[in-house]
Formats: sequence, C-alpha cells, structure tokens
Amino acid sequence: MSTRRNFIRQASFVAGAGITLSACANTAANTESMDETQNATPQKEPIFAGKTIVFQGDSITDGGRRKEQLEPNAGGALGGTYPLLISAQILGSEGEQGSKFYNRGISGNKVFQLAERWEEDCINLKPDILTILIGVNDFWHMVNGKYEGTVEIYERDFMALIERTKAALPNVKIIIAEPFAVAGGSAITERWDNEFPAYRAAAKRVAEAHGTQWIATQTLFDQALERGSVKHWCPDGVHPSPAGHHLMAEAWIEALREAAV
Amino acid sequence: MSTRRNFIRQASFVAGAGITLSACANTAANTESMDETQNATPQKEPIFAGKTIVFQGDSITDGGRRKEQLEPNAGGALGGTYPLLISAQILGSEGEQGSKFYNRGISGNKVFQLAERWEEDCINLKPDILTILIGVNDFWHMVNGKYEGTVEIYERDFMALIERTKAALPNVKIIIAEPFAVAGGSAITERWDNEFPAYRAAAKRVAEAHGTQWIATQTLFDQALERGSVKHWCPDGVHPSPAGHHLMAEAWIEALREAAV
Repeated sequence: MSTRRNFIRQASFVAGAGITLSACANTAANTESMDETQNATPQKEPIFAGKTIVFQGDSITDGGRRKEQLEPNAGGALGGTYPLLISAQILGSEGEQGSKFYNRGISGNKVFQLAERWEEDCINLKPDILTILIGVNDFWHMVNGKYEGTVEIYERDFMALIERTKAALPNVKIIIAEPFAVAGGSAITERWDNEFPAYRAAAKRVAEAHGTQWIATQTLFDQALERGSVKHWCPDGVHPSPAGHHLMAEAWIEALREAAV
Repeated sequence: MSTRRNFIRQASFVAGAGITLSACANTAANTESMDETQNATPQKEPIFAGKTIVFQGDSITDGGRRKEQLEPNAGGALGGTYPLLISAQILGSEGEQGSKFYNRGISGNKVFQLAERWEEDCINLKPDILTILIGVNDFWHMVNGKYEGTVEIYERDFMALIERTKAALPNVKIIIAEPFAVAGGSAITERWDNEFPAYRAAAKRVAEAHGTQWIATQTLFDQALERGSVKHWCPDGVHPSPAGHHLMAEAWIEALREAAV
C-alpha cells in the first residue's frame, strides 16, 4: 500500500512538467474488484467507441504476432504481449463498439526502421491514439556490433518521427513509453547500466518537446522488483514475462483512457 | 446492468444443484476500478501463493503455445488465449508468490487424447487446481469424418478421466468448463444446433457426478451476443476472439479464486 503510493508520487515527480504521467499499476484495485462480482456494477460508458488505437514498437510490442494478419482486433494479429492484454480487456469489457486495435510492432526495430514503414504501419491506419515503445535495439544492436547508431541519432530520428506524425495526423493523441532495462536481467551488462539511461532521457525529451503523454515504464519495473525477482517480471531484462506485460497493460490502459476522453 | 444481473441469475439456475457456478463476467467491476487508481487500494492476500494451476484442453486452450517450452509462467509457453490472460493477471497482480501456471492444451484434442497424455501433462505436474475445456473436437471431427466417436464415448471417456485424476490426486480441485458453440459462427451448421447440445449436457453430467466446479461457458457467450456480434466474440463459433477470451478469463478467474481459498 505505502509502496504503491510512494511509487505514484515518485513517478509523478519523474514525469516532470509539461507531460502527463500514466505509469501506475492498478492491479490492487483490480484484485479488489474481483470479490465484488456478485454486486455487479453498472457498465461504464464505452470510452473507446469508434476509436482506432495503434501499438508501435519492437519485439516487446510484436509479441510473435502474425504479420500477414492485417485486420484489427483479431487473435494472432495482436500478438501475445501487452497489446493483446490491453485489446482483449477493452474489447471484452466494452463489447462491440467499432473500436479498432492494431499491433504494428516488429521485432528488432530501431527508431529509423519505424520511420521506414511509418506511412503504411501508422499514418494510413489513421489512429486516434498511437502508443510507441522504441529504443532498446537502438542501444543493444550498437553494443553487439549490428548497428552504428548513437543516442544523438536516436533522439534526432525520434523527434523527426513525432513531428512527421503530428503533421500528417494533427489530432492524434500520442503516448510515448520509456524504453527500459530491468536490473539483474540476463542480457543486462554494466555497459547497459552506464549508457542506457541516456536513451531513456532522450525519449523523455522527445515526449516533453512534443507535449505527448509519457509512460514511466522504467519506474514501473524498478518498483515491481520489490514484489518479485527480475526472473518473475522480465527474465533477460528486456523482454517482460506475462506478469511484466500485465504491469505494462495496466499502465497503458490508464494512459489510453486519459487519451480517449 | 440488469442484463448482467439477469445473466448471473440465469447462469446460477443453469448450473443446477450439487455443482458450483463460476461463469460471471466481472468486467464492469474491473472497468469501475480503473478510475480509482489514484486511490490505490491495499493489495489483497495472494491467494494463489504456492499453488500449481494446470489448463487442459484443445486449440482454444493451446492458443499457439510453444510446445517445447515446458516451464511454468513463461511467455510463449502460456500461448495467446485465456490461459495467458489469466496467468498474466494473477502473476502480475499478486507478484512472485511461488505459484505455477501451466498451459497443456493441444490443438485438435478430443477427450481420449487427453487421456493418452494425462500422466505427463496432468498427473506429474501435481496441480492444486486443474481446469478442463474439452469436447468441441469430439463432435466436430465426427461431423467432418475424421473421427468415429459418439456422445456416449465422450461422456464415458470424460467420466473415466476425472475418476483417474481424483484417484491419482485426491486433493486436486477440478473445474470443468462447458464446451460451447456460438450461434452464427462461420463453422456452425444446423447439425451443430441439433446435436452439439448433447455434448454440453454430457460434460455437465460429468461435473455433477464428480462434484467438480462448472463454468457455464455457453451461457457466457449467449449473453455476450447482446453486447456484440458473433464476429466480435467468436468469429467461427468455436475459437473466441481476444474479446471472447477476456470473457472466459474473467469467468475462469472467479472459478480459480473459489478453488484456491
């Protein structure tokens, strides 16, 4: 309880001025409500009615989705990670309301690779709400010699991507999620501890510069380590377990609801 | 609201005497609680601490899981359907508590095929709670000429499987879910309308004969059609969409909580 409140306070502080914070795990509230099923509460207004939501990112978002399935809301097409958990919950609890959920994450993507497919995999889908989680490969692929990028290139390309998105879709609500690395994960070396925070800070500057929403994902996982090991939440430090994806889904749903109303 | 209450009443009636009912979608309660994140409620006691839960069934349960991944709680190993939604929610909301969630569904399975692999894929895992959803292929594969079974064989084999399970695991809590077919689905013919209800009734007799818990899955989907089309919940009438799996997950979680305490 006090941990949770501290987390919310800390996250609010971390979020800084000018951007909206939405990283809070409301799992306790959900657990609470499970006991109250017999006292069924009125269904809430379907706030995602008619809205199009696009999830963009790398393997964490991709979640093994079937790339040939292009339609929204379908099993397989949504993958098996946080976009599925979120879409299932909203589509299941709101019923059929004309909302469309598209997962367009692709494993291994860096920010410049989002840009290469942005017209087809973002703009043309005309999202009302767009969430982006990108950056871990911009660092990781540089470390393992697959890519020559720098944090400056990441920030420059990310800024350009958001500018382009806002120009093409003036009314889109954008949610940027902090790229994260969970301490103790099997892929996390000292070099991550030293150099990856700069990528997180760059993503935050992009969110602040464009006044987008921000999900403080690193804080979410740092706090979760008080309730379980890195193996429980995110074994390699990069790819969350189903438990970790649940935490992300809760934070995303809060952010999406804020964007939708 | 009134629909939900009516549903709970009706489902309770359908469940009959001697078995416990757990098919109720508490999505409205969940939606309610989302607004209350800032008033974080105390974390509930982790009722699944130390417990082993096994999900058994066919493709609806399998959900494209990676069969070579045998460990519990892992992404991929849990597939992409209701076992994943359930496990992610419990493991994420309770934190690391030593609970183990295994998905052992296999696409295309009929009840005799569960029996063939029961030692390895159920008994040896020593579940505290076992959920079983089986029967749609016992009918479907007969209809399309792949299998020579009858509803009598289904009931006989299902009874024997539960007897064997109780003999090997005297303390296991068993939850049987009703096999279902959603009206209007692309795979559902008149023959399903006429003959499949007998399989649902047979499964119910198995649950009643052994005093297991029962999830009235057919009622869950029948009622859901008031809030969306069959395409929204279960396009082919057999394999639910993510929205449909959310409904199942809610009903399963209720049943699992009842079994765990």
